[in-house]
Amino acid sequence: MLIIGEKINVMSKTIGPAMKERNAKPIQELAIVQVEGGAGMLDVNIGPASKGGAEMMEWLVKTIQEVVDVPLSLDTTNSEAMEAGLKVHKGQALINSASGDQERLHSMMPLAAKYNSKIIGLTLTEKGIPRDASERCIIAADIIAAAAEYGVSTGDIYLDPLILPIGVAQNQAMEVIEALKMFKELADPAPKTVVGLSNISNGSPKEIQSVINATYLITLAWNGLDAAIADSLDKELMGAVKTLAVFKNEILYCHSYLD
Amino acid sequence: MLIIGEKINVMSKTIGPAMKERNAKPIQELAIVQVEGGAGMLDVNIGPASKGGAEMMEWLVKTIQEVVDVPLSLDTTNSEAMEAGLKVHKGQALINSASGDQERLHSMMPLAAKYNSKIIGLTLTEKGIPRDASERCIIAADIIAAAAEYGVSTGDIYLDPLILPIGVAQNQAMEVIEALKMFKELADPAPKTVVGLSNISNGSPKEIQSVINATYLITLAWNGLDAAIADSLDKELMGAVKTLAVFKNEILYCHSYLD
Repeated sequence: MLIIGEKINVMSKTIGPAMKERNAKPIQELAIVQVEGGAGMLDVNIGPASKGGAEMMEWLVKTIQEVVDVPLSLDTTNSEAMEAGLKVHKGQALINSASGDQERLHSMMPLAAKYNSKIIGLTLTEKGIPRDASERCIIAADIIAAAAEYGVSTGDIYLDPLILPIGVAQNQAMEVIEALKMFKELADPAPKTVVGLSNISNGSPKEIQSVINATYLITLAWNGLDAAIADSLDKELMGAVKTLAVFKNEILYCHSYLD
Repeated sequence: MLIIGEKINVMSKTIGPAMKERNAKPIQELAIVQVEGGAGMLDVNIGPASKGGAEMMEWLVKTIQEVVDVPLSLDTTNSEAMEAGLKVHKGQALINSASGDQERLHSMMPLAAKYNSKIIGLTLTEKGIPRDASERCIIAADIIAAAAEYGVSTGDIYLDPLILPIGVAQNQAMEVIEALKMFKELADPAPKTVVGLSNISNGSPKEIQSVINATYLITLAWNGLDAAIADSLDKELMGAVKTLAVFKNEILYCHSYLD
């Protein structure tokens, strides 16, 4: 299970100002601790970034890749900022994201082809949130068709079924599970899958968010999930992720494997 | 997921003496808190009980069913003690257990038929521990054949693939997962499945046992597991079990669902 650290986000009270002031230190420190916590990739979320997004993303990619040796998930709806980040990124980046929104789809997918990047396909359109697994699959098929049009391998697409908070839309938890299984059948090579995990417990009391996130991640792992944008600083969550890797013989058990 | 409370065990420092002295109070209290913690059945383990086992099991079944309204899993290799318990048990009991050991299989299976009980079929023989999923299935097929011989429905059999400690036999964790999936294909109606969960973390440091148990239970739940003999007093484990039930829409989410 690839964990994509979620913490570098313009909405954060410390990181947002650091991004604007080009203050590298707090951003680099947060990058390092997330990787130490178990993240194999880091999300870099600058939001819509309509003003100066390109310069900010370029600076962020360089600043973060100075201190950690993992690829980045470039998270913005601004395609100019996206391209600025892709240009300077070392290794294969992840575009976060295309969606079923036609304008966004046809601005982001060509960038995946041009820069040989991976790309998230969020099953959401401008018409609103999908109601069930089938609606998610219809949007996913549209994303896969666009990938074929631009020559992006389906193996480089990470389909995201869009998790909704359990406290808001409880029945969507099972629809996401169904969608993940269906996504894998949509193309050959099979698309990969990703979720924004923390959204499942968004709005739930702080003290139960970790058990909700951890239990859902293990659940999704056994239903076709390849990656999750998540909090790699959450010890309860990462304990479950590492324990899963022990069961799968991906890491060797020793009494201190969680230290 | 049916949780079978594991705590009433002759090996316990407090419960063992209470069993011998026919001291009802600590046993009844432990029964009540386990059910309050989320157990839907209680295991009553008296060990081999070669001396006075029948009287002890009869007394235990009556004593426990006086205070809780759940069926019991009668846990002994002594078939005389088993029958004494079944005779006085209210509702459908679970025989814990038959196995691939021929003597044990052919002494326990007729009791399941005679008392219309459910029965655990542990995939273990007198020759030793199975090495992989296939060996577990060969033993399971033997247990299913005996069930047919005595007229026990395969829907009343709980096949147990025998969990080994992760610190002793790491690769067996995946073999158990494979075995569970294979068990479901062995008969129609499909056999049910059960594990003795705590064995996965037996020998691991105390502070990491809960995350190992919880992560493994969620893992097994998505691979064909119906029931687990486990510690229903473990809040971390039971938090995961209840959260799973929320995802499956078996219980309604509210912010206090874990209280």
